[in-house]
Amino acid sequence: MSSKFGKIFSVSTFGESHCRGVGAIVDGCPPRMPLTEADIQKQLDRRKPGQSRFSTERKEEDRVSILSGVEKGLTLGTPVALFVPNKDQRPGDYQKMSGIPRPSHADYTYQMKYGIRAASGGGRASARESIARVAAGAVAEKFLKENYGMEIVAWVSAAGSVDAYGTDTETVSREQVDQSPVRCPHPESAVQMEQAILRAKEAKDSIGGIVSCVCRNVPPGLGEPVFDKLEAKLAQAMLSIPATKGFEIGSGFAGSRMYGSEHNDPFVRKGDGLGTKGNRSGGVQGGISNGETVFFRVAFKPVATIGLPQKTADFEGNEVILEAKGRHDPCVVPRAVPIVEGMAALVLADFVLRQRRMMKP
Amino acid sequence: MSSKFGKIFSVSTFGESHCRGVGAIVDGCPPRMPLTEADIQKQLDRRKPGQSRFSTERKEEDRVSILSGVEKGLTLGTPVALFVPNKDQRPGDYQKMSGIPRPSHADYTYQMKYGIRAASGGGRASARESIARVAAGAVAEKFLKENYGMEIVAWVSAAGSVDAYGTDTETVSREQVDQSPVRCPHPESAVQMEQAILRAKEAKDSIGGIVSCVCRNVPPGLGEPVFDKLEAKLAQAMLSIPATKGFEIGSGFAGSRMYGSEHNDPFVRKGDGLGTKGNRSGGVQGGISNGETVFFRVAFKPVATIGLPQKTADFEGNEVILEAKGRHDPCVVPRAVPIVEGMAALVLADFVLRQRRMMKP
Amino acid sequence: MSSKFGKIFSVSTFGESHCRGVGAIVDGCPPRMPLTEADIQKQLDRRKPGQSRFSTERKEEDRVSILSGVEKGLTLGTPVALFVPNKDQRPGDYQKMSGIPRPSHADYTYQMKYGIRAASGGGRASARESIARVAAGAVAEKFLKENYGMEIVAWVSAAGSVDAYGTDTETVSREQVDQSPVRCPHPESAVQMEQAILRAKEAKDSIGGIVSCVCRNVPPGLGEPVFDKLEAKLAQAMLSIPATKGFEIGSGFAGSRMYGSEHNDPFVRKGDGLGTKGNRSGGVQGGISNGETVFFRVAFKPVATIGLPQKTADFEGNEVILEAKGRHDPCVVPRAVPIVEGMAALVLADFVLRQRRMMKP
Amino acid sequence: MSSKFGKIFSVSTFGESHCRGVGAIVDGCPPRMPLTEADIQKQLDRRKPGQSRFSTERKEEDRVSILSGVEKGLTLGTPVALFVPNKDQRPGDYQKMSGIPRPSHADYTYQMKYGIRAASGGGRASARESIARVAAGAVAEKFLKENYGMEIVAWVSAAGSVDAYGTDTETVSREQVDQSPVRCPHPESAVQMEQAILRAKEAKDSIGGIVSCVCRNVPPGLGEPVFDKLEAKLAQAMLSIPATKGFEIGSGFAGSRMYGSEHNDPFVRKGDGLGTKGNRSGGVQGGISNGETVFFRVAFKPVATIGLPQKTADFEGNEVILEAKGRHDPCVVPRAVPIVEGMAALVLADFVLRQRRMMKP
Repeated sequence: MSSKFGKIFSVSTFGESHCRGVGAIVDGCPPRMPLTEADIQKQLDRRKPGQSRFSTERKEEDRVSILSGVEKGLTLGTPVALFVPNKDQRPGDYQKMSGIPRPSHADYTYQMKYGIRAASGGGRASARESIARVAAGAVAEKFLKENYGMEIVAWVSAAGSVDAYGTDTETVSREQVDQSPVRCPHPESAVQMEQAILRAKEAKDSIGGIVSCVCRNVPPGLGEPVFDKLEAKLAQAMLSIPATKGFEIGSGFAGSRMYGSEHNDPFVRKGDGLGTKGNRSGGVQGGISNGETVFFRVAFKPVATIGLPQKTADFEGNEVILEAKGRHDPCVVPRAVPIVEGMAALVLADFVLRQRRMMKP
Repeated sequence: MSSKFGKIFSVSTFGESHCRGVGAIVDGCPPRMPLTEADIQKQLDRRKPGQSRFSTERKEEDRVSILSGVEKGLTLGTPVALFVPNKDQRPGDYQKMSGIPRPSHADYTYQMKYGIRAASGGGRASARESIARVAAGAVAEKFLKENYGMEIVAWVSAAGSVDAYGTDTETVSREQVDQSPVRCPHPESAVQMEQAILRAKEAKDSIGGIVSCVCRNVPPGLGEPVFDKLEAKLAQAMLSIPATKGFEIGSGFAGSRMYGSEHNDPFVRKGDGLGTKGNRSGGVQGGISNGETVFFRVAFKPVATIGLPQKTADFEGNEVILEAKGRHDPCVVPRAVPIVEGMAALVLADFVLRQRRMMKP
Repeated sequence: MSSKFGKIFSVSTFGESHCRGVGAIVDGCPPRMPLTEADIQKQLDRRKPGQSRFSTERKEEDRVSILSGVEKGLTLGTPVALFVPNKDQRPGDYQKMSGIPRPSHADYTYQMKYGIRAASGGGRASARESIARVAAGAVAEKFLKENYGMEIVAWVSAAGSVDAYGTDTETVSREQVDQSPVRCPHPESAVQMEQAILRAKEAKDSIGGIVSCVCRNVPPGLGEPVFDKLEAKLAQAMLSIPATKGFEIGSGFAGSRMYGSEHNDPFVRKGDGLGTKGNRSGGVQGGISNGETVFFRVAFKPVATIGLPQKTADFEGNEVILEAKGRHDPCVVPRAVPIVEGMAALVLADFVLRQRRMMKP
Repeated sequence: MSSKFGKIFSVSTFGESHCRGVGAIVDGCPPRMPLTEADIQKQLDRRKPGQSRFSTERKEEDRVSILSGVEKGLTLGTPVALFVPNKDQRPGDYQKMSGIPRPSHADYTYQMKYGIRAASGGGRASARESIARVAAGAVAEKFLKENYGMEIVAWVSAAGSVDAYGTDTETVSREQVDQSPVRCPHPESAVQMEQAILRAKEAKDSIGGIVSCVCRNVPPGLGEPVFDKLEAKLAQAMLSIPATKGFEIGSGFAGSRMYGSEHNDPFVRKGDGLGTKGNRSGGVQGGISNGETVFFRVAFKPVATIGLPQKTADFEGNEVILEAKGRHDPCVVPRAVPIVEGMAALVLADFVLRQRRMMKP
C-alpha cells in the first residue's frame, strides 16, 4: 500500500523486474496540458541502462505508452496511465542465487515482510521500479515548466571519492550535465569520475556517489507547515530512491557546524519583493519555499551487486560464497540523475496544486 | 492541511505559540494499552525550555492533559486527544519585529503563503509546535515498548564543531544521555559542548549540532516498498522538525565514498534466523527493517534568532538593523533529543500497524 | 483511524460522552476568513438537547472554544482546533446496563471490535460525538457562505409516519424551519409530527424520520469523477451520522421506477450558460455539480434507547429484560437537522478546495 | 485525484472509453494468495455488454491481463496491475453529438469542471470505467472468500415498476441469480422484468431498477467509528457507481416509519456468542459489523441515453432535438449486479485489513 506518492498530483506505480512491465498512474494532473510520449521518453532514455560503458551493458529499450488520460495531445484532467513493457528478461542469471539473500539487497527483508518474493531479480526492489518514477516525474516536470517556467537540474557531484567542483547552481543545465557520460558538468572532475568507475568495474567492485539537484523559479509559498514541509517531502522522495543513504538541503550537515550569525540569510530587496543574500537555507524557510533556488544533495551507497566473491549465509544460515553473475552497474549515480529530477518534480507539482487551494479563483 | 502524520497510527496537531494551547489527536492507537499523563509528561519535561543554562531561560510548565480516548488508565481504541495550555505568553517581545521578517525564520514565507501570519511569535513555525510531536510520540513509544520491547534513544553527537566520540549504539541509554545537560553521553565531549554553547551564548550568537538516534529491537519487515520506505518516512519525519538541514541513515554520506565490497553487510546466522555482520545499512535494506538496530543522524542548523545585530530588510524592502530581544536558545539540539525520539516512534508505530495487516489474525 | 473526514478541508474529531470533552481540528481552512465562536455556537445551540419537550430533557450547555488557528477574528490558514467540554456527566444512569449490550446500539460491536468499551454511555457512538461534526461544519459553512453565497438548509420531512408537504427547495430557509420545534417548515405537518413524537414519548417508545436538505448556489464543477463523486461523498457523510439507514439524491429510489424520457433533465439556456428544466438529477450529473440546487434525503431509524422493557441477552448470552432509565430523545430528527447541514458543508468545502487546484492562479 | 478507493486494500483506476484501455492497480492485497486471470474474468464476463437481448448489442470481449504483482499464480504483496484493452471503438456514433451535452449525462459537468472532455463517448463517465471496479473487486472477493469464506451476492430486486419477491437473503446464490438473463432470482418476477425491459426497448425508452446485495459470513468488528462506518463506506461505494440515486441498509427508508420497539434487534445466544433476532440493522450497529448478514439496496435511475427524440439545448444554449444513435442498454441493472458485488468486496477487504491492525500478531 505504499506505491503511491503525492496528495493532489498523485502517482501510483506497479511492476516487478520480470513481470509484463512497469508503469504508473498519474492522477491529478490538470487538464488541457500538452503531453506526448516524447515528453516522457527523453527522461527515460537518460535513465535506461546500456548508455555507456560506465553503466551496465544490459540493453533495455524502455518505450513508454500513454494508455489513458490524453486525447489529441492534451490532458483531460483524468488519470494518465503510463506503461513500459519489460523486454529483456533473463531470470536465469538470478536463478542460482535464489536460496541466498544477496548482502545489502532486499531479498532477505522482502522474504521477512511478505513470506514470499519474486523468484528472479529484485521484484519491487529492482532498479526497473524507478522507470515509473521517471515517467511520472516527466509529466510533473512538464506541468511545472509550462506553468511556472520551473527548471530542475541534477548532476553527479561525487563518484566514490572524486568530488566535482565549480558548479554554478544558477546556470547549470541538462545540456552541460549530459556532455559527460557520468553526468558531471565539471569536465576535469568528470574525467576523474570516469576513471574511478572503470577502476571499480575492473576490480569487479562498485562505488557510490552523490547527486546534487537544483530547482529554479520555484515560487514562494510552496510546502506545508509541520509534517509536510518542502524539505521533508523532498527528503522522503529522495530516500525512497533505491540505494540512497542521506539527504541534505542548503547548508546541510556542514551548516550544523556554523554560527547563527554566519548561517542566517539576511533579506534584501529583489525586484518588487524580497530575496535573500546568500542561500544557506536552500530556498526553504520554515518548510516553505522563499523564492530562492532550492538545492539539495542525495547520497547513494555503492551498488550492492558486485562480481567479487562474498562470504555470506544462505536463508538456512549456512555459510556460502556468493559470486554475482548478473549484469550490473559499477556505479549507479549517472543513471540516478533523472530519477532525482523526477522525484523532485513530483514533490513540487504536488505542492503547487496544494497551494492553489489557498487562493480564491 | 499538513498537520497530520501517519497512515494508521495517525497524529493531527494544532496550536500556535500564543493561542490557548497546543495539542494533538492520536487516532489509531490500539485499544487496551495502559496510558497515563505521566507516560507523556516525562518526555515533555525533557523538551521544555528552562531546564539548564544551556537552553533558553524562558520557563514553561507544559502540563499535558488527556482529553479523550483513555478510561481507567486504558486506551479505548478511539482518538486520544492531548492538550498543553500556553501559559507564558509575552507577545510584547515580538511586537517590535512584526514589520521585519526575521532572517532564516518563517515570517516571510508564512506571509507569502497565507497572506497573513500570527502577529506575535512564529505561529506554527514556533518551537512550541514540537510539544505536540513529543506528546504524541510518547504514546507511540509506549505502544512500541509494551508490545515489542522497542527502545529508542537519541543523543547529541555534535554541537557546533564539537563531535562526540565513543557512543555504543547497542547499549546507550536515556539515563546515560541525561547525565549531561547537553544530552551527550560521552562525558568529555559533553563538557566541551557545554563550553561551546556558553561561548556562543556570551557572544549573543548561536550554534547548531547533530542528533543521533538508535532504535533497538525493531522487528524485521517494517517499512513499505517504493515510496514509504522506512528510511524515507524517517527522513520526512526528521526533516519536518524545525531547523533540520540533513538526514543520513547507516553509513550515510560517508558510505557514498566506499567500495561495495567494504560497504556490504554479509549475512550470518543469528539465533534462529539471519543477522548481518556489520550494519552499514543502518538496519534497513530495500526500505524494510532487517532486524538489526536502526540508526540515523539529523543535522540542525544554528538557531536563527540571535542577539547580535543583523543587517536585513523589512517587508517593504528597506534596509534595517535587527536585534532580537526575545529569550532564545543558543543551541537547540539538547532539547531536540526527545523530539527526534518522538518522531522516530511515530514512524515505527505506524509501520508496525501497517505490517500487521499482512498477517492473518 | 477513521475520525477524519475530508481531503483538503479536513476534519479530525475526538471525544467520548463521559471524558473531558469533545472537539475537532479543522485543517485546511483558507486563511484570512473572519471566524468567531459565535459563528459556531449558533449551530451547536440548534443541536443541543433540552431545546423542547420533543427532545431529551437532559440539559447540556455545549459552549465551544476556539483553541487555535484564529487571531484577531481571522483564520491564519493553520489548524483551527475546537473544543466543547463535557459537563453533565451521569455515568450512574448507564452503570446498571454495562453487562447488557443494548439492542441496536453499538455496545456489542465496540466490544467485539476493540475488546473494550467506554464503561458509561456509548463512547464514540454517543450522540455527543456529533457536536464535533456540527462545530467543524459551521466553519465550513462560513467559508462557503463568504466565498460563494452558498446556502444549506435542512429540515424534517418525515417523523414516523407523518410526511411534510409543500416545501419549496428554492426558498426554504432556516428561519422557516426553526419556527416549529420539530423543524418542519410546513406548519400543519409540523403539528402532526409534534403529536406523533409526544405519543411515542408517552408510550415510552421512539420513532424515526427523514431529514431533507438543499444546497443552493453550488457552482458547477464540484465533485470528482469515479470514487469521490459529489453524491458518493454526501452519501458517506450522511450514512456516517448515527442512526441513519438510507440516503437518496434527486429522484432517489422513486426515480428507479421512471422511464428515461420522464427522468432526464433537458438543458435550457439560463443566464450566460446552461441550466436544466427539472432537477431529477438533484444538482449532480456524472458525480459533478451542474449548478442546479443539490438536494437529498436521509433516513433515520427510531431511537434505539426506549423506556419499554425489552427481552434481550446479556454478554454471556443469558436472557434478560432491559428497561432503559437514561434520558433519551423520543425522536432524534429535529436535532439531526444541524448535523446534516454540517456534514453537507464539510463535503462541499472540501470539493470547492479540490476543484481550485484545477485552475491556474 | 479521485480514481482511488480504499485505505489499505487500495485501488487506483484509469481509462476512458476510447483510449487504449482501462485498468486498475490493486495495492495492498496480502501476499501468497492464489490469483489467476480466470478469477477476475468470470466477473468481467457477467458485466460485459452483449450478453442478452436485454442489454446493449455492442459486443466487447473485455479480456483482463495481470500485468504485475503475481508470480507462479501467487500474489507477491506488491501492486497487482490489471488491464483490459479497449477494442470496439466507434467514435463515429458520438461525433454528431459533440456540440450537444446529452441530458442527464456527464458531458456538461465534465466540460464545466475541466474545460475539456473526451471528444467521443463519456470519458471517465463512460460505462467502461466500471470494468476496473469489477476487476479489482474480483481480487478483493477472492481474498475475502479464501480467508473468511465470505459470500457476496447481488441481484436485481426491481426493474422499472416490477418488484422481485421471495428472495431469501441467507441462501440466495449467484447460480440462482444467473438463471435469468435479468439476474432476478425469483423466476416469475424475472419474466415480468424481461417484458418490462423489452417494452422500454421497443419504445426507444429506458427504465431503472434496484439492485439488492447480501454479504454473508462477515465477521463482527468491521467498519470504523465516526466517518468510516461500514454503512458509510458502502454508501459511498454504491453512490460512486454511475446512474445510482439511492442507498439503504437494513430497514432503510421504511425503517424510518417504524417504532423503536418494533425496529430494535434484540440479542440472543448464537453458538458461542451473541446474535440478533431479526436484522433490521442490516448487519451493522454503530457503523461496525455485528456478525449478521449485511444487506443493502441500491437505486439506479433509468439509462439517460434513449432513442426517443429529446428537446434540449446545445452548449451555446440553442434549442435542439437530440436523437441518440449509439448502442445502449434499455436497462442497466442486470449488468450492474457484478459492479455492486465488486464495490462491496472492495469495501469489506479494506475494512478487514484495517481491523487486523487492532490485533497483536
